[in-house]
Formats: sequence, structure tokens, C-alpha cells
Amino acid sequence: MTHSLLTTYIPHPGFVIWMTGLSGAGKTTLALALEADFRRRAMRVERLDGDTVRQSLTRDLGFSKEDRDKNIERVTFVAQVLSRNNVAVLASFISPYRQMREFARQQTTNFVEVFVDASLEVCAARDTKGLYAKAMAGQIPNFTGVNDPYEPPLNPELHLRTDQESEEESVARIMAWLGGRGWLPR
Amino acid sequence: MTHSLLTTYIPHPGFVIWMTGLSGAGKTTLALALEADFRRRAMRVERLDGDTVRQSLTRDLGFSKEDRDKNIERVTFVAQVLSRNNVAVLASFISPYRQMREFARQQTTNFVEVFVDASLEVCAARDTKGLYAKAMAGQIPNFTGVNDPYEPPLNPELHLRTDQESEEESVARIMAWLGGRGWLPR
Repeated sequence: MTHSLLTTYIPHPGFVIWMTGLSGAGKTTLALALEADFRRRAMRVERLDGDTVRQSLTRDLGFSKEDRDKNIERVTFVAQVLSRNNVAVLASFISPYRQMREFARQQTTNFVEVFVDASLEVCAARDTKGLYAKAMAGQIPNFTGVNDPYEPPLNPELHLRTDQESEEESVARIMAWLGGRGWLPR
Repeated sequence: MTHSLLTTYIPHPGFVIWMTGLSGAGKTTLALALEADFRRRAMRVERLDGDTVRQSLTRDLGFSKEDRDKNIERVTFVAQVLSRNNVAVLASFISPYRQMREFARQQTTNFVEVFVDASLEVCAARDTKGLYAKAMAGQIPNFTGVNDPYEPPLNPELHLRTDQESEEESVARIMAWLGGRGWLPR
């Protein structure tokens, strides 16, 4: 691709919205809504999730603890270089281990931990990809919340209960938090 | 890290200076000089090379063809998201295979292939890390130029002969090329 003309962006600080939570809690749904909102504001934005990184960055990784840690390590590198260059990063990963989320926080600029929280029952009932049914039938090993651990954030910047609030409410809370920090373009 | 104040950058398009060539040809030396120059111009810049990515992104990779390809694949993802967000990327990797350099070109914005060329004899004589001596003694397998192939670029944007021109001349040629494209800030 060649672009010799300069795309117009509105200046804003880089930051990382790190959405952690169970499969089906609504991480990707929120990331897509935020991405659309940021783009309307002419912000620089990159969305990082399993779908965007699995083709290249993490193609070789599975779901063991070691592989999950490597996954977060590689994604964190990308979030690091983007966030320190004024890009808004939307990272949505189950990221079940506190230690690796803390690692991501330490390595990046303006890290915002967002706990995207819904009860296991609600997540399993949504079961958008039919994964909970398979995991509960013992067909998927290392499935977070069923047969693999999830360590909830102890002190996240935002705790969204997506089983009790609407998508619009969750998005509005994140945007209000960012606006309060002065991280959205004027 | 927390930065709530906006760093002042001068707007410029993103691009990727992809430096390919043998170990010892001068890729990292040129990348460091360009990085300093870009920063003096208040440009956004990230340098990607073995030293900067090996700790996280490519820690598990060796020097087989398969691992070299994976290395370029992961680095290319990073260069892709940076270059499309107006960051100047300085990538210096031996990257011996044409096919993977072509892949990087296709995936990124404003890709500039720079062939950092010096004869094998000159590279081996420099031997900054003592690697050629070991490779020639059979102690390092898959060492590019000694017992592993290097496919020179057929049509690079720039062909620098670092065994015939000074570092300052090479840097000046790259800067002139970028200036001619209008990619340096006014």
C-alpha cells in the first residue's frame, strides 16, 4: 500500500483499553463499538484481539498457561509501541492471569484495565460460538471459567457488568472515564 | 507509565525503512543514525531489530527457514500497525528471503526496501560480534552468507554499498529519498 498524502488525525495521547473477562462477556462487542466511536472522532486506533493477531502474531499458540502468557507478552509488545506513539489501543483478551495483566500495565502507556464482567451463567447462555457447550461436555480443555482459572481484577479502572447494563451504558462509562482524563481529542 | 500531556510531534506519513543485508553490513548502524535524525525532526519513530524484538516477540525463534519466516511475519504485523498510524518504522533484519520481504511490502504502508550491501569479505573482516569466525569454523549452523542462503533484492528502492560509501553518505541518500517523496515533516 502506498499513501503519500497525510491522513488527518486529531492529536490525542496514546492509551490502552485492556478488556479482560470470560468468553461471551462482551469484550469484542465493546471494542467494536469503541473503535467506531474513536474513528468518528478522527482518532488513531488499533483493535487487538484473537481474530486480529491469530493470523500472524500468535498463530503457533494454544491455550496452556505458558501459551496464554506468550500470547499476552507478544500483544503487549504491540500495545507498547502503539500506545507510546499516540495510538488508542483496544485490546480484548480473556487474559485470565493477574500477573500478565500487570505486565501489560507496566510495559505500556496509559493502561486502563476494564473488567468486562458477566456471570458464567449469562456467558454460557449467550454462548455465541457454541464453545461453553463443548467445554462443559469435556470437548475443550483449558476453557476459562469451565476447566481453566480466571483471576478477576482486584482494582480495575472500570468494572462493567454487562449482564446488568446495556452496551450503550458500558460504552458511555468508558468514554466518560477517558474524557475525564483528557485523553479524547478536543 | 502514565503520560497525560500530549507529546508534540510533527505530522508526517507512516513508512517502513526495511534494511536487509548480511550480518555486519551496517543495518543497525544506519538504523541508529536514522532514528537520531528522525527524533531531531520530532517525528514518531520505532526501531525494530533483533535486539528490540527478541525479548518478547520472537523469543522462541531460531534460524531455520521456518523460524526466519515466522520472525518476519511477526515483525511485519508490528510494522503494519505502526506504519498505518503515521509512525516511521526502522526495521533492520537480515531477512534473507525475497518472498518474506515481498510479504512485508504488501502488508505495510509506504514500504522502502533498502539493500545494505557489503561484500562477504568486508562483513567477515568487520565481524563485530565474532560470528563469522565461528560460522566459518562450523560452530554456527544456518549463518547467512556462510552456510545459509541470502537472496539479494532485485529491485530495491535504495542500494547502499556500505563498503564503498561512508555512513554519512548512506544516511544522506536515505534522507534525500524520503524528502523526495515528501515523507519528512516540513
